[in-house]
Amino acid sequence: MSGRSIELMEDESIEKIFESKEELMEDESIEKIFESKEVPRWQDQLTVRALVVSFMLSILFTFIVMKLNLTTGIVPSLGVSVGLLGFLFVNSWTKILHKAGFLNHPFTRQENTVVQTCVIASAGIAFSGGFGSYLLAMSQVVARQSTSANNPENIKNPSLSWMIGFLILTSFVGLFCVLPLRKVMIMDFKLIFPSGTATAHLINSFHTPKGAKRAKKQVRFLGKFFSLSFLWGFFQWFFAATETCGFSNFPTFGLKAYQNKFYFDFSATYVGVGMICPYVINVSMLLGAVLSWGIMWPLIEKKEGDWYSAHLSSSSLNGLQGYRVFIAIAMILGDGLYNFIKILSRTLFALYHQLRNKNMSSIIGNTTASPPTPALSYDEQRRNHFFLQDPVPAWVAIAGYIAIAAISSATIPHIFYQLKWYHIVLLYIFAPALAFCNAYGTGLTNWSMAAGYGKLAIFMIGAWAGVSHGGVLAGLAACGVMMNIVSTASDLTSDFKTGYLTLASPRTMFVSQIIGTAMGCVITPCVFWLFYKAFDDLGLSTSPYPAPYALMYRNIAILGVEGVSSLPKHCLTLCCVFFIAALAINVVRDAVGPKRGRFIPMPMAMAIPFYLGGYFAIDMCVGSLILFIWEKIDKTKADAFGPAVASGLICGDGIWALPSSLLGFAGVKAPICMKFLSKNDNARVDAFLSS
Amino acid sequence: MSGRSIELMEDESIEKIFESKEELMEDESIEKIFESKEVPRWQDQLTVRALVVSFMLSILFTFIVMKLNLTTGIVPSLGVSVGLLGFLFVNSWTKILHKAGFLNHPFTRQENTVVQTCVIASAGIAFSGGFGSYLLAMSQVVARQSTSANNPENIKNPSLSWMIGFLILTSFVGLFCVLPLRKVMIMDFKLIFPSGTATAHLINSFHTPKGAKRAKKQVRFLGKFFSLSFLWGFFQWFFAATETCGFSNFPTFGLKAYQNKFYFDFSATYVGVGMICPYVINVSMLLGAVLSWGIMWPLIEKKEGDWYSAHLSSSSLNGLQGYRVFIAIAMILGDGLYNFIKILSRTLFALYHQLRNKNMSSIIGNTTASPPTPALSYDEQRRNHFFLQDPVPAWVAIAGYIAIAAISSATIPHIFYQLKWYHIVLLYIFAPALAFCNAYGTGLTNWSMAAGYGKLAIFMIGAWAGVSHGGVLAGLAACGVMMNIVSTASDLTSDFKTGYLTLASPRTMFVSQIIGTAMGCVITPCVFWLFYKAFDDLGLSTSPYPAPYALMYRNIAILGVEGVSSLPKHCLTLCCVFFIAALAINVVRDAVGPKRGRFIPMPMAMAIPFYLGGYFAIDMCVGSLILFIWEKIDKTKADAFGPAVASGLICGDGIWALPSSLLGFAGVKAPICMKFLSKNDNARVDAFLSS
Repeated sequence: MSGRSIELMEDESIEKIFESKEELMEDESIEKIFESKEVPRWQDQLTVRALVVSFMLSILFTFIVMKLNLTTGIVPSLGVSVGLLGFLFVNSWTKILHKAGFLNHPFTRQENTVVQTCVIASAGIAFSGGFGSYLLAMSQVVARQSTSANNPENIKNPSLSWMIGFLILTSFVGLFCVLPLRKVMIMDFKLIFPSGTATAHLINSFHTPKGAKRAKKQVRFLGKFFSLSFLWGFFQWFFAATETCGFSNFPTFGLKAYQNKFYFDFSATYVGVGMICPYVINVSMLLGAVLSWGIMWPLIEKKEGDWYSAHLSSSSLNGLQGYRVFIAIAMILGDGLYNFIKILSRTLFALYHQLRNKNMSSIIGNTTASPPTPALSYDEQRRNHFFLQDPVPAWVAIAGYIAIAAISSATIPHIFYQLKWYHIVLLYIFAPALAFCNAYGTGLTNWSMAAGYGKLAIFMIGAWAGVSHGGVLAGLAACGVMMNIVSTASDLTSDFKTGYLTLASPRTMFVSQIIGTAMGCVITPCVFWLFYKAFDDLGLSTSPYPAPYALMYRNIAILGVEGVSSLPKHCLTLCCVFFIAALAINVVRDAVGPKRGRFIPMPMAMAIPFYLGGYFAIDMCVGSLILFIWEKIDKTKADAFGPAVASGLICGDGIWALPSSLLGFAGVKAPICMKFLSKNDNARVDAFLSS
Repeated sequence: MSGRSIELMEDESIEKIFESKEELMEDESIEKIFESKEVPRWQDQLTVRALVVSFMLSILFTFIVMKLNLTTGIVPSLGVSVGLLGFLFVNSWTKILHKAGFLNHPFTRQENTVVQTCVIASAGIAFSGGFGSYLLAMSQVVARQSTSANNPENIKNPSLSWMIGFLILTSFVGLFCVLPLRKVMIMDFKLIFPSGTATAHLINSFHTPKGAKRAKKQVRFLGKFFSLSFLWGFFQWFFAATETCGFSNFPTFGLKAYQNKFYFDFSATYVGVGMICPYVINVSMLLGAVLSWGIMWPLIEKKEGDWYSAHLSSSSLNGLQGYRVFIAIAMILGDGLYNFIKILSRTLFALYHQLRNKNMSSIIGNTTASPPTPALSYDEQRRNHFFLQDPVPAWVAIAGYIAIAAISSATIPHIFYQLKWYHIVLLYIFAPALAFCNAYGTGLTNWSMAAGYGKLAIFMIGAWAGVSHGGVLAGLAACGVMMNIVSTASDLTSDFKTGYLTLASPRTMFVSQIIGTAMGCVITPCVFWLFYKAFDDLGLSTSPYPAPYALMYRNIAILGVEGVSSLPKHCLTLCCVFFIAALAINVVRDAVGPKRGRFIPMPMAMAIPFYLGGYFAIDMCVGSLILFIWEKIDKTKADAFGPAVASGLICGDGIWALPSSLLGFAGVKAPICMKFLSKNDNARVDAFLSS
């Protein structure tokens, strides 16, 4: 589901990039500008420096995505940051070596595309690997929060070895899956792939003189806020001796509000995320927080002892926590279902038309020449030319797919004994079709439904296996297989679009995606392992790393396998109300059109604070506010440098997660606790300390 | 002594105003611009609206000065803030009434001068009234910190009634004192009075169209930062349940540094003060803090049990605190003595030349016309014309002085029985000469030596009365009498200069200064009373209101009466070293010239953190840093709006002192304590709270 969040949030930033690239796009032919520059051979596009930079950036962005996964599960588009940093690093590398007198080939945009592809592929694994969702959902920490299905059969704790194995087995399949169809989707269907196109324009612009100047300015902004954000994270650390201390527990609006999770937690990351996300998302979240923690939960809390037993631990799903989790799930499922059906039907409808017209035109084209195919522009001719060079043969794709599928089916049951080989074979039979659907849908709407397909797999395989045979775990594992396939498939196709527009060879794209995926399969579990070992309450709702989707996914799996029997009183009714409300809000949104629709809140965004509380929504609204004021003062500057500032804030805080988790890993505690006590507690503590 | 700090700090801001007013001053004649505007009669310059606005602003600025007095004793020049706010209020008042359809005379610059004079006179009492120095020094709280002279004879606790009485008896004398000499000083000697001239230029500029536009912009800046600073003060309040809680105890550089008083205490006031003060002052303070709290005190602390007894309370002057206080006093006295002699000799020397030349020229002028007196410019002619209108007769001044002196001599011994009538008569005999000296010196150098004359009185009268007859108290009271006379005298003369340059009638100036002083005599003790009742540890070095000069003044009085017997071991040696160092640094400063001299620290500024620690020096350096960066980015803007931003920060935080002390007075405590515990203490507290 966070997959949807990811894609949702890309919309806005893409529009901004498009806006700022208008000069370049509107009249001139891009390829005319680049005509004088030779396109290197495909082997020369894959340079050592590009791969080294990719590796470094992969680590950086894996940290960022992992931190986001484990805190709120909201991951914004990091494409612009990757682009800027990639450009910065390779460019500096080239210049430094040149100054040192080494022979160097110039930095080409094809190389830049390689870096972008590689890093996005690697960081993508941090999301599709499910470290904040299905994978962590299998662990004991999460399982213990529920009274049902917490038997050993349904639990599998993370371990470095099986996570790397599982990722390697499942992440490459998607790549082979859509490879043969790339020409159809990019050249024939001319799908848009908004993210891929935006990235391509960004890269193209970097390599024009004017664009390079702007990029340098943006990089300077990014660098400044990167350092500030990093230092701020470092400074904060000193005051957080335990997890209840420090700035992240600052009761900005008072202790009462803090108890109801309304406070500003001084997180540079989420202020940055708020600057990237569209206003509607941030406001929806705040609305959701007010509705749930401000109104509903306090009301339900009054029914303690009546609706639910008063003697439960605060994290028990049979108590208040149950309402929080299941109502959030209901809204997520309602919103997800609506959009799944919407995108799928649009995909199938568009596909049907496309195929029919194609057949028609090919028939007509053979007999008469009456509807003249429009003359290809210079750009298109040149792009098509390079896109058809260096093909990856279809047999490689098919052979690769079958080989990996066979190995997977044989070995995955050794990792998850609850998942049988025939479950996996079934998944691999359907996967290519679903992967194609998802790639096509993403190309059309920029909206990857990977998480939706994943949930489908949970319900199907989970129910089939049954609870007594570890159905919950089987469901979650199936979800992983499915998500990895469809997610990488849409990513690769989007990358092909980027490559098409930057004249990068498809073979280069394929190889760099494979390299990126391989990096991701190793880097990501290691980074997760660092967090997992450093913060021992990871996955609990009281932790600074609550990983909200882990509990959500587990409970979706339990719902799929066991039904609704474990819900507390009236919870089912409330869930139905919110499920229908989510559907209804979406219907209204689409009915009133995009102009007025943008003032209607998004159920998906509202649901996350239902479980977590409003603190990160407040951070994000602060980000919105900063951007809003900046736009009022100087719109041009805000549009040009807003994403750079936001990226700086996110990256700086994100990279601080590395030393921070290393310190945690080594057991080093901060020297000071900034504590917030009520007037009365303070008097008691003062008396205690002076005694 | 803070008197000197006050005047010192004015230098820089004045230069800035001069700079920004250059366009107006250089070529054009100011009075040509104002030619078309009629100058109102003197009665019409004293409007009701001006007095109402003066009253409001007097309260505001009394709060600010009082807060500064009681925290560190460093009071920067607030002339620009008063000017801006006075202009804002009367201007808005006029416009609103005009819009409401009421008949209104336009807002004139003479009226603006009245407001300025009135407010500065009133707020001046907050300084010369000694609430942070000699007056508080009489109280029991301060007396208890010393083992000597804390007998009832040498203690007098503040009370509203006697404070108001004392101020009324002493504050008006100075006004009458210099009145007859105003023509000599302003018109004949043409003394500069940098502050008075700067204020006049500010007011003149407000009333030109271009100046009004800039003033409005400055007012907007001031307003914005005023609100921010006020809200910040308000926000901070919630987290300070007790005096050891909250942002003002934030161990920014760690707990160890905090114990040695190195931390940033988030005070908007001192960040603002730092923006107004010259860099050299802020850096000197930081240097002083590092030298004392960073090096000397930790070293002396190691001698505990050897140099001084280990069983003393931390505030005992026989222990470490004694070194802090007396070494600071030594530096203050050394610096003070040097400058007292320097200014006095310059004054006398200049006076001698002036008088000799005058006699010469008047003789020559009578016989031949050979050295032609330079033709008066249009500006001067017009100013002289108005300055000679509406004179205040000399007999009023003389009669007033004798009457008040007689009443004072008869009544002050009823307030302080330790001070005899003949002490007071003696003071009043010397006062006119000293008042004239101080006014002349201020006119020449912008450097009021009021505090220096005050200390002279402490030593003279204190020694005469003797310790057994309450000599300490007599000395402090004599200091009050002296300071009030010489301080108001120089203020009034400076105001005459402002009036001269804005064509305000001298009679208006005199009357508005009397009104301002009268306001000050009532408002100031009331504001002090509010602080005194609201914060019951006021005057202790551990309090948020330590009022450092109170203890200093008391100890100067004790030194004067009792000698150096009470000092701890080696303290006298150290005091001598620092006394001589202070003299030497000043000699070097003056020897190398102003260009390189500005890199030499000022002993006066270094001394204050010796007692208080470095926290406010860090605040002020943050202010310097902000200004420095702002000047790097945009010098023009920083120069034009820097003082407005600083004023906003100071005023906002200052006015927050009103509700804050009211809350304290009513016994309302903040709901939250933001506490900073070490890792180990925190573990203990957590265990205690959960038990």
